[in-house]
Amino acid sequence: MSSSIGENLRITIFGQSHSPAIGCTLEGIPAGKSIDEDKLAAFLQRRASRGQAWATPRKEADAPEFLGGLFEGKTCGAPIAAVIRNSNTRSKDYSQLKILPRPGHADLTAEIKYFGSQDYTGGGHFSGRLTAPLCIAGGICLQLLEAEGITVLSRIAAIEDIEDRGELLTSTAHKDFPTVSDEQGLKMQERILQRKAEGDSSGGLVECAILGLPAGLGDPMFGGMENRIASLIFGIPAVKGLEFGDGFGSARTCGSRNNDSYGVKSGSICTETNHCGGILGGITNGMPLTFRCAFKPTPSISRPQQSVNLQTGQPEELVIQGRHDPCIVPRAVPVVEAAAAIAVYDALLGRKKEL
Amino acid sequence: MSSSIGENLRITIFGQSHSPAIGCTLEGIPAGKSIDEDKLAAFLQRRASRGQAWATPRKEADAPEFLGGLFEGKTCGAPIAAVIRNSNTRSKDYSQLKILPRPGHADLTAEIKYFGSQDYTGGGHFSGRLTAPLCIAGGICLQLLEAEGITVLSRIAAIEDIEDRGELLTSTAHKDFPTVSDEQGLKMQERILQRKAEGDSSGGLVECAILGLPAGLGDPMFGGMENRIASLIFGIPAVKGLEFGDGFGSARTCGSRNNDSYGVKSGSICTETNHCGGILGGITNGMPLTFRCAFKPTPSISRPQQSVNLQTGQPEELVIQGRHDPCIVPRAVPVVEAAAAIAVYDALLGRKKEL
Amino acid sequence: MSSSIGENLRITIFGQSHSPAIGCTLEGIPAGKSIDEDKLAAFLQRRASRGQAWATPRKEADAPEFLGGLFEGKTCGAPIAAVIRNSNTRSKDYSQLKILPRPGHADLTAEIKYFGSQDYTGGGHFSGRLTAPLCIAGGICLQLLEAEGITVLSRIAAIEDIEDRGELLTSTAHKDFPTVSDEQGLKMQERILQRKAEGDSSGGLVECAILGLPAGLGDPMFGGMENRIASLIFGIPAVKGLEFGDGFGSARTCGSRNNDSYGVKSGSICTETNHCGGILGGITNGMPLTFRCAFKPTPSISRPQQSVNLQTGQPEELVIQGRHDPCIVPRAVPVVEAAAAIAVYDALLGRKKEL
Amino acid sequence: MSSSIGENLRITIFGQSHSPAIGCTLEGIPAGKSIDEDKLAAFLQRRASRGQAWATPRKEADAPEFLGGLFEGKTCGAPIAAVIRNSNTRSKDYSQLKILPRPGHADLTAEIKYFGSQDYTGGGHFSGRLTAPLCIAGGICLQLLEAEGITVLSRIAAIEDIEDRGELLTSTAHKDFPTVSDEQGLKMQERILQRKAEGDSSGGLVECAILGLPAGLGDPMFGGMENRIASLIFGIPAVKGLEFGDGFGSARTCGSRNNDSYGVKSGSICTETNHCGGILGGITNGMPLTFRCAFKPTPSISRPQQSVNLQTGQPEELVIQGRHDPCIVPRAVPVVEAAAAIAVYDALLGRKKEL
Repeated sequence: MSSSIGENLRITIFGQSHSPAIGCTLEGIPAGKSIDEDKLAAFLQRRASRGQAWATPRKEADAPEFLGGLFEGKTCGAPIAAVIRNSNTRSKDYSQLKILPRPGHADLTAEIKYFGSQDYTGGGHFSGRLTAPLCIAGGICLQLLEAEGITVLSRIAAIEDIEDRGELLTSTAHKDFPTVSDEQGLKMQERILQRKAEGDSSGGLVECAILGLPAGLGDPMFGGMENRIASLIFGIPAVKGLEFGDGFGSARTCGSRNNDSYGVKSGSICTETNHCGGILGGITNGMPLTFRCAFKPTPSISRPQQSVNLQTGQPEELVIQGRHDPCIVPRAVPVVEAAAAIAVYDALLGRKKEL
Repeated sequence: MSSSIGENLRITIFGQSHSPAIGCTLEGIPAGKSIDEDKLAAFLQRRASRGQAWATPRKEADAPEFLGGLFEGKTCGAPIAAVIRNSNTRSKDYSQLKILPRPGHADLTAEIKYFGSQDYTGGGHFSGRLTAPLCIAGGICLQLLEAEGITVLSRIAAIEDIEDRGELLTSTAHKDFPTVSDEQGLKMQERILQRKAEGDSSGGLVECAILGLPAGLGDPMFGGMENRIASLIFGIPAVKGLEFGDGFGSARTCGSRNNDSYGVKSGSICTETNHCGGILGGITNGMPLTFRCAFKPTPSISRPQQSVNLQTGQPEELVIQGRHDPCIVPRAVPVVEAAAAIAVYDALLGRKKEL
Repeated sequence: MSSSIGENLRITIFGQSHSPAIGCTLEGIPAGKSIDEDKLAAFLQRRASRGQAWATPRKEADAPEFLGGLFEGKTCGAPIAAVIRNSNTRSKDYSQLKILPRPGHADLTAEIKYFGSQDYTGGGHFSGRLTAPLCIAGGICLQLLEAEGITVLSRIAAIEDIEDRGELLTSTAHKDFPTVSDEQGLKMQERILQRKAEGDSSGGLVECAILGLPAGLGDPMFGGMENRIASLIFGIPAVKGLEFGDGFGSARTCGSRNNDSYGVKSGSICTETNHCGGILGGITNGMPLTFRCAFKPTPSISRPQQSVNLQTGQPEELVIQGRHDPCIVPRAVPVVEAAAAIAVYDALLGRKKEL
Repeated sequence: MSSSIGENLRITIFGQSHSPAIGCTLEGIPAGKSIDEDKLAAFLQRRASRGQAWATPRKEADAPEFLGGLFEGKTCGAPIAAVIRNSNTRSKDYSQLKILPRPGHADLTAEIKYFGSQDYTGGGHFSGRLTAPLCIAGGICLQLLEAEGITVLSRIAAIEDIEDRGELLTSTAHKDFPTVSDEQGLKMQERILQRKAEGDSSGGLVECAILGLPAGLGDPMFGGMENRIASLIFGIPAVKGLEFGDGFGSARTCGSRNNDSYGVKSGSICTETNHCGGILGGITNGMPLTFRCAFKPTPSISRPQQSVNLQTGQPEELVIQGRHDPCIVPRAVPVVEAAAAIAVYDALLGRKKEL
């Protein structure tokens, strides 16, 4: 199923950009867990457009309403269900998309897949707006992980060819533009604004590090931490690449440089380097789990583009109207955390079965 | 479940490197499909070590025996089950691994996960040998895809920093060292032999292109072709990165360069470039589906390495014995095809439900 | 997962008796299918309490609101999500249940399972009220089956020892008390009212017949039509038994009487009797698929009952307050249809994959 | 998937009656569990035909060979895979079944489902022989449950209208004909032999009681213990009915008689009666979990029967050749235990996730 995922924790995301609401269900969270709704709302705010220069002018309140699964502030064992009403919608902006598909978007593939019955307004179920319910589910998992001493950090690692500097050791969540180096962050913002001015958009990288994971998490083969995280991360619109630890860099080197030697630190075994990103054989080794994912540039750009009119079958120039992010990467940072948290918490529940 | 995967087609891989046999079950293949066992054996030979300089000297016949699921040469609707006996095993080589984990391997993580009960001989269930039953399953899917006009091509795209040249337009399956440019292939082989002589190993990239796919395959969110392929590809030991189309390259550019404009060719809509790797919104657009995956260097190197003795808790030097591939990438090429074929055939079966 | 079910069609039921809302998501329905919302509302009315003598006085409007999955009156490929607001709730009625569990209810088992964190108001997620979203999902499936020429009939087959008469050949859906024989129906109603007057309740049987099924539906082993239907039917609260065709009667007879001989009718093969309930080897044979399920009497009775005070650990008499159905069977009839329709439609989608 | 089942424990059954082998895979059993292979062989012997008067003369050694998943006598975390070779097969007996389907068998439904490509020899994948690998999986689960203090008892509760007497309180596993009352057992055997002499067969009931279960096992809705057990039990060929506790009897009575009052015994809460079969709201209450299932008479009888020739489309008399059980019920007793054990052990693994 495409909008559901999870083995021990099952998440279903529903709604379309312009349907009455978007939301999610979460099944499998143990009963008796406290959920801090204010903290969750604050997490969702990191994803929401707040009118920053790089974000769509469509402001989103995105306050979730819980319909079930909580009782007296705690999980009660029933599935959690939460919704966000869609209010600030402008369906008229999208009327031409039905016949003139946008390059880089799912307009044409959805038209083919659903025989023309897709909800094309605002990108329908393919809209980046659907990452809001993903953040509800992931935000809950982040809280549950935190209670187990597990922290998920992330940052913008690059906008186009401008890379962040410094290691990702502490949270960037308090920053409006979440990079480690503020200097590099400024350069990135300049690039984005320049692209915006050109009617264009920017791609970029998000890096994530998960600290405090117990060793022994994950499974061999298709249940590896890489597989689990990949299944979630590629569910975020615009992600086209994913690497763990040194990732593609590992392919360019030799074994003696890529292997992480074992050592002993404060009486416990650790590795001196972390080229493997904390995962060996799909299973965590107790070091930070690290990965990076590649976001393509927002396909909605205001420059004229070449499309084909589906009614006439003739090439036709397209100029996209509407409100779009010139770069999705800054708002994608908490979404990546949410996706990773879901994968990790699912694996953690699975680990209990084996004990 | 970690050794099972698939939604419409369900595959389970079983066995360990030195258990009586390894094998797989496949459920969900429609009845009445012809399986060419000779062709399957030939495909498996591409993965098997045949004593090439870059491969382990452990020769593997790897002829699968079908225990069920076939009747008079065709699928009969029952699950397909096939096994390969493990014969040429030397368990004594591995006795030290129980107490002295190899860097870059799953020895330590398996020890922690399974509380010391893991089958550590030959890497157990984590061994690259388990890609043989994956190739049985994938080899069957390749035949079924071919019958639908779908071809899966692949090649070695790089060994360390030596990249292949030319586009991947035709099969390299007939080559002993499957690159497009034989000249580059020779350079790669030299590098591998040099590493072998140094007691070291090489990483590399495998590229894959799937031709003939209908548009409309795959699903939004977690059912996208990227998610489906990633779930399988990260199940191959040593894969640490995966990118679709331009992948990480897309992150470094702007929307006007990354979007694939629509055009009309012989009356049907196509894109002029293929930066998206044939996938938009998780769904195929009818262009070739392309991806590349990064393999880390074989962690089993003969150079002395630093490990920790699990009995004494003290650092100890490790020298790995046994027969290992100085570079797994050449033998991984058909494995990548197999994994991709499983993901694609599963999506194809799912597509039928919607029609 | 306990509140999700389905293979090709995935349904998740959420909410509690007194949470803000109850609802469901449905994934896997092909795009472009018309859903008649008025017809669905009429179906839901059959389940709702309308103040009949045998039903709870808690009247339920139960008009579903669709939050996603529909676009211009048709399925659009995205998951369908629908909710019903909980308005007419009286949480104060249930305060004692936390410490004095009701015999025959899930109060004690939920207390143990969820460590006291369960939502105990109104039965929480165990409430019969959760059959309303099941009827949303099933009502949609009934419409889709009807479009394929498949009809689901059902009736009250017995209330306690009073059995209905006549064969189930046409719909009883228009009747307030859905039996084939109105005379027997009156006797049943008298029995229920007598029990109600005694502060007691009645058990009963529901029979279901599915007409128009193609032969070849269902799978061997755990995918048989019996397994599929059982998985759904036992999800209805109070069901304690299920039999297909002659069911328990088959166990009391011999093969020559139980086997259904083959014959030819209008050129096609059929059986002369239908002891097997239209299923052989888990797969439909083209005859009506028939089953009966046993509902225990409503455990909420107003007579004093023996319970144990969970705080003191001492036995204590319990008198249940609140509004309850003296017999759930009449309102369960459409719920059984809904559950059966989900199982059948899921199997039908699965059948397409094999063609 | 039809031949796979399980949520936390995943089982796949493969093979056909006359294919090279039958077998199973089991995934999800924690590492480090001891499996007693002799004890498992003894359990399988209870299912095997040993030439008793009521069983097929086809003697089956049924000694499983483990191909993977065990290491030094314990589970090692990898999937368990075990096979039984098919040796004593007589394929020629079955040649006519391709064109003259046996009443009560899956011959015709398989022909339709698989478009004539099914393995029809010996019933193929529908054969009762496939319950042998189910017993491998279930026999392992029985051992694991026993280690947790959980016992699964069962017996023949009836052959046709002859019912066993006495309560099922201790194991009948040591008896050749497993009833509680030997006197009733003799009468049942006489009936079976009489049917055999008449070229006919007998149906019957198997009862099962699971002792030592912790309270709190199972889930609401579709994850209830009834649903879980039903999904497995209806996977046994010839099962047409299933009831828990008083089952169909509950439907014939009133709430005040059917509710199980709570009491206190040795300081812990229990019920004085057990009409609910140890399950409330799908969840165990700590009392014995009890159920009964109805087996139809073996459809393979030697009397002439009416069939239809699939080649000519004309009615034709069929006389079944081959070796068949005149009553499958005695040999089905351990199969029911196996199926129940799988369902219970799966639920037990799931329970750990919640703690």
